[in-house]
Amino acid sequence: MNANSIDSAALWADLQAVRRQAPLVHNITNFVVMNYSANALLAVGASPVMAHAKEEVADMVGIAGALVLNIGTLAPDWTAAMQLALAAARKRGVPVVLDPVGAGATPYRNAALAELLRTGAPSVVRGNGSEVMSVAGQAAATRGVDSASSSNDAVDAARALAHELQATVCVSGADDHVVDAGGRWAVLSNGHPWMTRVTGVGCSASALVGAFAAVQPDTWRATVAAMAVLGVVGELAAERTQAAQAGVGRLQIELLDGLQLLDEASFAQRLKLKVHA
Amino acid sequence: MNANSIDSAALWADLQAVRRQAPLVHNITNFVVMNYSANALLAVGASPVMAHAKEEVADMVGIAGALVLNIGTLAPDWTAAMQLALAAARKRGVPVVLDPVGAGATPYRNAALAELLRTGAPSVVRGNGSEVMSVAGQAAATRGVDSASSSNDAVDAARALAHELQATVCVSGADDHVVDAGGRWAVLSNGHPWMTRVTGVGCSASALVGAFAAVQPDTWRATVAAMAVLGVVGELAAERTQAAQAGVGRLQIELLDGLQLLDEASFAQRLKLKVHA
Amino acid sequence: MNANSIDSAALWADLQAVRRQAPLVHNITNFVVMNYSANALLAVGASPVMAHAKEEVADMVGIAGALVLNIGTLAPDWTAAMQLALAAARKRGVPVVLDPVGAGATPYRNAALAELLRTGAPSVVRGNGSEVMSVAGQAAATRGVDSASSSNDAVDAARALAHELQATVCVSGADDHVVDAGGRWAVLSNGHPWMTRVTGVGCSASALVGAFAAVQPDTWRATVAAMAVLGVVGELAAERTQAAQAGVGRLQIELLDGLQLLDEASFAQRLKLKVHA
Repeated sequence: MNANSIDSAALWADLQAVRRQAPLVHNITNFVVMNYSANALLAVGASPVMAHAKEEVADMVGIAGALVLNIGTLAPDWTAAMQLALAAARKRGVPVVLDPVGAGATPYRNAALAELLRTGAPSVVRGNGSEVMSVAGQAAATRGVDSASSSNDAVDAARALAHELQATVCVSGADDHVVDAGGRWAVLSNGHPWMTRVTGVGCSASALVGAFAAVQPDTWRATVAAMAVLGVVGELAAERTQAAQAGVGRLQIELLDGLQLLDEASFAQRLKLKVHA
Repeated sequence: MNANSIDSAALWADLQAVRRQAPLVHNITNFVVMNYSANALLAVGASPVMAHAKEEVADMVGIAGALVLNIGTLAPDWTAAMQLALAAARKRGVPVVLDPVGAGATPYRNAALAELLRTGAPSVVRGNGSEVMSVAGQAAATRGVDSASSSNDAVDAARALAHELQATVCVSGADDHVVDAGGRWAVLSNGHPWMTRVTGVGCSASALVGAFAAVQPDTWRATVAAMAVLGVVGELAAERTQAAQAGVGRLQIELLDGLQLLDEASFAQRLKLKVHA
Repeated sequence: MNANSIDSAALWADLQAVRRQAPLVHNITNFVVMNYSANALLAVGASPVMAHAKEEVADMVGIAGALVLNIGTLAPDWTAAMQLALAAARKRGVPVVLDPVGAGATPYRNAALAELLRTGAPSVVRGNGSEVMSVAGQAAATRGVDSASSSNDAVDAARALAHELQATVCVSGADDHVVDAGGRWAVLSNGHPWMTRVTGVGCSASALVGAFAAVQPDTWRATVAAMAVLGVVGELAAERTQAAQAGVGRLQIELLDGLQLLDEASFAQRLKLKVHA
């Protein structure tokens, strides 16, 4: 198996590594999803820490296996902490996942993102189509290039952004696309539409990418693994929820149960993954 | 049917409008309930956004269908953001729901409320009896009138406050009372006492009022619809919870499921609504 | 029964007092666990309030039966509020529970803890082994003594810290140890390992200690009662969760249900308590 050819066994090995190593994942994330992200990380076997004080983020990064930045409920103090943490992570070689929640929604959010990107490039960007397109435009504008800003296609924007930042970019949606600067492109087709009706599932995806990136140095593969696990878990959780005639409240709980209890046979059987070299 | 005569079919139509239009509801709310309020909005079919930076709240209001202000975990920066958002909402005609959590508990909270009310009147105030009485006193004092401040009856205070602010006021309790400046008065008698033992159910009620006000321009009717839906859902959820010999943890999940899965027949059959013209 | 001899009947009486009196517990706690702690307090029968503004914490302490300080997502403004609240609580005789989350993880956190301890001693400190050892070292260093800082044993550190602060200290783990300055030492052996995989269970333990300390003036006994209830509830909840082939998502809900629905027979039958005089 070369780096372009990943399969369910390889991704399962990454999940086992998370469960075995219980990596510490440092999150500077939004208020809405802190609890759910922490529970998702605990369920998958990782160890979450949330810390945002400018006075301690660099030290916390120093003991973490990955850093996850999420701009969901942004404020100036938090952006400053994110910049300090990002700089510390890059210096120490700690992988950084950026979740650009609501990118494009307000000028302030765009300016904060541009400032973050000037501080340094994350290892992974994960967002929905419009967020990735917005960040691609920001990155292009920030860096004086406009290759991506004219595209209306999220996968094209993701490719341009991956090239711009020399990073992995994941566009989440009905299909999840994971691309990197070297041209690798994975498409994952698991999941369920109800997953968008539990707040923080997308943000937890980013947190899970952090957990996998802490144990798998190939960040593209780590991102594929995290999205694959969450997609399969989501599909199973939605089936169990609907079989119980329950709804999105129950789904929230089933997702956590699934992250903990997923077994290799179900994962291998369910995984819908295509890799374009 | 005139504006004073609403029935379950009218309220059900409002819920259908929420589900169809998925309005964006901008919340500046407290840390304790952010997650649950977001999930309640998603479950009912709306689209939540939480944003509190002074730098972006006015822009966020500009793309939202409603603004919900909740003073549960107040701090000076947040009050300032609420004032900016409230002013922007009034300028643009975006309905504003105020949830005066803990009004009367501390002088600071009262002063912050008074400042908010000086910025402008919300479209709807929703709180429990003592909160509404406290705000009525504040509003009266702030505006140099003391019509309400001497009353010990929450519905009288609600009426005075509705008149003072030219707004809809909802007093939640075993019965929910919804009054407006024009003298309309609805009493809803659904719900279950266990609902007060899940944190954020009251705050989520206010968030739901925002969702309904975004699609129904008659804010009194929108408030009645939101409280009716939550009351019926709560009653059903408590029954299912107790049938499963479960408790208030399970209730929290059943409430979200119910907001998503409520059907018209159950709603019509269960609704206990009286309207006084 | 003297003060050293507590049994399940005495601890059950404390739980009944919480349920009957519904004490107001003022929490200045971290963003991750605010919702879960509030729900745990509501489930057990207490009344939570979360408030952190420097402008109101002293007033809020004035109407509370206990104060719970948790440094999980610390920032300078919050430390300042904790100091004001701690000073107000000591002045008014309101019991204070300190949960030193992540003590020892960063220099900033240690400095903040030292500053808190200079403001005054809490009535109870509850943390895991490494946190208690770190605080014991801090307390010793802060106060110019180093009796505890050289110990590698958490119970020894707890004893030294209890003596230093003239407080109750609880070390949570597979066994929970509760010691006080007078030499009392209780060991509780209930609970389940999965409890560490739900975020906020430890923090909720501290919140529950606050609820019990509000109704039981012997803070050592109050701490034993809170930890006993949570341990038995956790054990039962884990059994129910595993019987349903569910995981840590479901456990989170079962814990809340159990805090509400625990009955005296189950408590008495399950309790594993040893008291060393």
